[in-house]
Amino acid sequence: MSLPTESKPPVRIDQISAELGLGPNDVEPYGWYKGKLALGLERRLPERPGARYIVVTAVSPTPLGEGKTVTSIGLTMGLCRLGKKAIACLRQPSQAPVFGIKGGGAGGGRSTLVPTTDINTHFTGDIHAVAAAHNLLAAVLDNHVKRRLQPLVDPATVTWRRVLDVNDKGLSRIITGLGDLPQAPLRETGFDLTAASEVMAILALTTSLEDLRARLGRIIVARAPDGSPITAEAIRCAGAMAALLRDAIRPNLVQTCEGGPALVHAGPFANIAHGNSSVLADLAALKMADYVVTEAGFGSDAGAEKMFDIKCRVGGLRPNVAVIVCTLRALKLHSGRFALKPGRPLDPGLLSENLDALHAGAVNLQAHLDIVRRFGLPAVVAINRFPDDSPRELEVVRKLATDWGARGVAVSEGFARGSEGTTELAQAVVDACASPSDFRPLYDLQSSAEEKIDTLATQLYGADGVDYEPLAKKRLAEYAKLGFGQLPVCIAKTQYSLSHDPHLLGRPRGFRFPIRDVRLAAGAGFLYALAGEISTMPGLPTEPSARRIDVDKDGHVTGM
Amino acid sequence: MSLPTESKPPVRIDQISAELGLGPNDVEPYGWYKGKLALGLERRLPERPGARYIVVTAVSPTPLGEGKTVTSIGLTMGLCRLGKKAIACLRQPSQAPVFGIKGGGAGGGRSTLVPTTDINTHFTGDIHAVAAAHNLLAAVLDNHVKRRLQPLVDPATVTWRRVLDVNDKGLSRIITGLGDLPQAPLRETGFDLTAASEVMAILALTTSLEDLRARLGRIIVARAPDGSPITAEAIRCAGAMAALLRDAIRPNLVQTCEGGPALVHAGPFANIAHGNSSVLADLAALKMADYVVTEAGFGSDAGAEKMFDIKCRVGGLRPNVAVIVCTLRALKLHSGRFALKPGRPLDPGLLSENLDALHAGAVNLQAHLDIVRRFGLPAVVAINRFPDDSPRELEVVRKLATDWGARGVAVSEGFARGSEGTTELAQAVVDACASPSDFRPLYDLQSSAEEKIDTLATQLYGADGVDYEPLAKKRLAEYAKLGFGQLPVCIAKTQYSLSHDPHLLGRPRGFRFPIRDVRLAAGAGFLYALAGEISTMPGLPTEPSARRIDVDKDGHVTGM
Repeated sequence: MSLPTESKPPVRIDQISAELGLGPNDVEPYGWYKGKLALGLERRLPERPGARYIVVTAVSPTPLGEGKTVTSIGLTMGLCRLGKKAIACLRQPSQAPVFGIKGGGAGGGRSTLVPTTDINTHFTGDIHAVAAAHNLLAAVLDNHVKRRLQPLVDPATVTWRRVLDVNDKGLSRIITGLGDLPQAPLRETGFDLTAASEVMAILALTTSLEDLRARLGRIIVARAPDGSPITAEAIRCAGAMAALLRDAIRPNLVQTCEGGPALVHAGPFANIAHGNSSVLADLAALKMADYVVTEAGFGSDAGAEKMFDIKCRVGGLRPNVAVIVCTLRALKLHSGRFALKPGRPLDPGLLSENLDALHAGAVNLQAHLDIVRRFGLPAVVAINRFPDDSPRELEVVRKLATDWGARGVAVSEGFARGSEGTTELAQAVVDACASPSDFRPLYDLQSSAEEKIDTLATQLYGADGVDYEPLAKKRLAEYAKLGFGQLPVCIAKTQYSLSHDPHLLGRPRGFRFPIRDVRLAAGAGFLYALAGEISTMPGLPTEPSARRIDVDKDGHVTGM
Repeated sequence: MSLPTESKPPVRIDQISAELGLGPNDVEPYGWYKGKLALGLERRLPERPGARYIVVTAVSPTPLGEGKTVTSIGLTMGLCRLGKKAIACLRQPSQAPVFGIKGGGAGGGRSTLVPTTDINTHFTGDIHAVAAAHNLLAAVLDNHVKRRLQPLVDPATVTWRRVLDVNDKGLSRIITGLGDLPQAPLRETGFDLTAASEVMAILALTTSLEDLRARLGRIIVARAPDGSPITAEAIRCAGAMAALLRDAIRPNLVQTCEGGPALVHAGPFANIAHGNSSVLADLAALKMADYVVTEAGFGSDAGAEKMFDIKCRVGGLRPNVAVIVCTLRALKLHSGRFALKPGRPLDPGLLSENLDALHAGAVNLQAHLDIVRRFGLPAVVAINRFPDDSPRELEVVRKLATDWGARGVAVSEGFARGSEGTTELAQAVVDACASPSDFRPLYDLQSSAEEKIDTLATQLYGADGVDYEPLAKKRLAEYAKLGFGQLPVCIAKTQYSLSHDPHLLGRPRGFRFPIRDVRLAAGAGFLYALAGEISTMPGLPTEPSARRIDVDKDGHVTGM
């Protein structure tokens, strides 16, 4: 891998592939700058002993964003700059927010993935394929119900909804089957974003095409009149779904803006699902590079915990180091002394030096360091620096993080400077990788779902205990009886707080953690417990980004 | 181009591109066997004087299918076998029927496009991109309506629906916007197949990215309180839609199973839309090959007429020859003496020799020969032969077609024998191309919409006259007033009859042609007049193909 000093024109994907040492048939081109790994490549490549696996997580994020994707890309480029063979493994961003308010998810500034616009929109079609497989199951199920095919389905028990990758709030609750139509029952249902589909979680967790096929078959869509689960296999749709996903299962190779390799594959939500890029991409990457950098969604209480307790178990993966990204403004926000209003300018107090607020809010970082330690991993804190950040505040965070047990602390300037701004971080990560790690999941799979939830709530989130609503208790008993009690549990809660309440900033204590409902993703292989309302179909703002996006006559997209 | 004698392993797309004489950057690979033409390639390639443009159409089809796609592919391969430089330009098949009952649309037997499964499912993502652009407009429109943004939209006038590429009857009529949601009005609407989207018609008719952008902006989605049209441009969504279509606008290069080139691009319906593959693909093909074979949907009264009156005007295209595909069983069915019941074995009378029935039904072929002549084109009749076809019946059709003015008649066996079975047809087409053609559209654009519809109904379909329902009259008056009266008219009628009534087989006479409603596709640039109910969202049968499709561990799809 070359040693660039600044963003450079992209090279064609066959060159990226060749620099990884791959053979001419190992990466199938999807356009000049995208490629799909050959099916099963992760098994065929030789083992690479000593490859290091680094997860990038964060403090509890704020609505401003802490720059975790930028830091993941910047860190990977920084490692390349140090002469290491490094690769980034990231989630495929959803297209929906690109046209809403949040924007793309391929990094930013001088730490960006290329081809940026492609990655942020259709990319290689994987999200569309997930939606097609998901919606085919919905159509086949409705047809099955209405025609009263065997096995009989109780129409009132259908839980399978539909998905689209567009922020279309009007679709979140709909009535289908109006009119005199033989093939569809009249009922209330709705659309979620494709990223919220169980099929997306399956794509991210699967370990082979056979495994994908089996997991699709295990998806539960409804109940029989006797209450037993009706699966996608039972209504004979799982094979067709797998056929629609036969290319989507293959990880996608792209490049950083400095010409290093990156894999972008699968993009499940980090609340109702586990919020991590694919197992298959990571398995392949660990045979292609000495340093594999992957990003987990939200804070360490969310995506990183789910990576450790769900993804790593499935893939037999053992992380070496966790990087915790923070910003000065996020830590100060966690003091609870500043209001953040959407569409309004930032509180100037957030942007000026305020050591008191910083100390008060930094306890959130401390909590995340404790969480990472709980999993037996050395932590490196990456302070994602903004141009006007106070040097004194940076020093305070450096000292606090070290005092609280961080193996390394580094200021990271990937956005402004690319790999020139991330060499300190990269070196800290290399050093931390030299330390022994003692990775272990948080809970045993053998423990009951209640025990797992209690452990998560009390040992990770800082709750005094868990309160289950009757519906949640009923579901847990039912899943235990059906034999699903020993699945890992994915907690669906706000990302803004370690607790269930987005207003409890910093390091909340003295609260009880409420579980409203528990659902079963039998294909993905986890239960998900709902602590609060989770939106799976956002709306558009008054001024959606769609209104300023356009294309010039050469096909270049503007305003994205 | 090589001279293969049987189906052979596919070659990589760069080889197909090189054999076309294209440069290394002219075709961007999308996988090993698919490629997208570079943007604007159709303008940059040098003119190829003398290139011949051949449209493949058919008699009024039966539910059995007459093998038009097979014949188009077989003819192209036959031309290659004769040493001609030939290319096929076909519609992208919809994925939906692959999982329903109809199956794929990439040919069959030894006249198939490759990679078949890819073409029949996601392909290069164009249909997904059309759906994404279409549904983004729906979301932005609902948001615009509910937030009462400028220009104000009358909520009761919204006509823009949503689309998906799956046979999901339950979505055809739905109520959206349930719940207390600020971003979406409560109302009845529905989903159509993506192929029915006006965006798909636009993709097929556009001549450049600038033109695409402008056409998207002209889409009318609702009315203002004063009745004036509200366009996608007015609600500022057309730029984002164009951004989502920036790659979809580029024609897709694939190959025949004998290794010849084919372009597959855009797939609009042939009733509510014009049913032809893209203008851009044909423009490019006419600079790449000496013989360009394109297929128009349904019979010559449907897709071919729309090709001549809509597509050719837009693209400045001048066809040289029309090939009319027929089968013995279709012609005998047109006698009206045989019943065809879905899911039941064919009437044995259809399969045994029956010269009476053949003579009685062959008048349908005569009508289609008359239609082609009406456009000034020489016609070649291709009898798509089945193994048990009676040689005497074949001779009867050959004689009748010649008597009725066909420039050539050939038995075609592309399905069973590939190009070995289509050389007679290919030679007949080459010979017909040597005759002068006097191509002219049917009507002047300056004539009124009523005049155009009258001309189509009386001169092409054989009706005595047209009956307009009051709604249709009202709409026609309205469109004339808004300045759209001089658009071409696309008739949405059954494909099974020259008339509006699928039961009127053969060559019906003595009927009046009813127009129920007329709608405006201002972006695509045509009015479409509804003569009967047209389903734009089919359902699934009791035993959908999805139930037998699967994938093996190597990623090969089975049962498709």
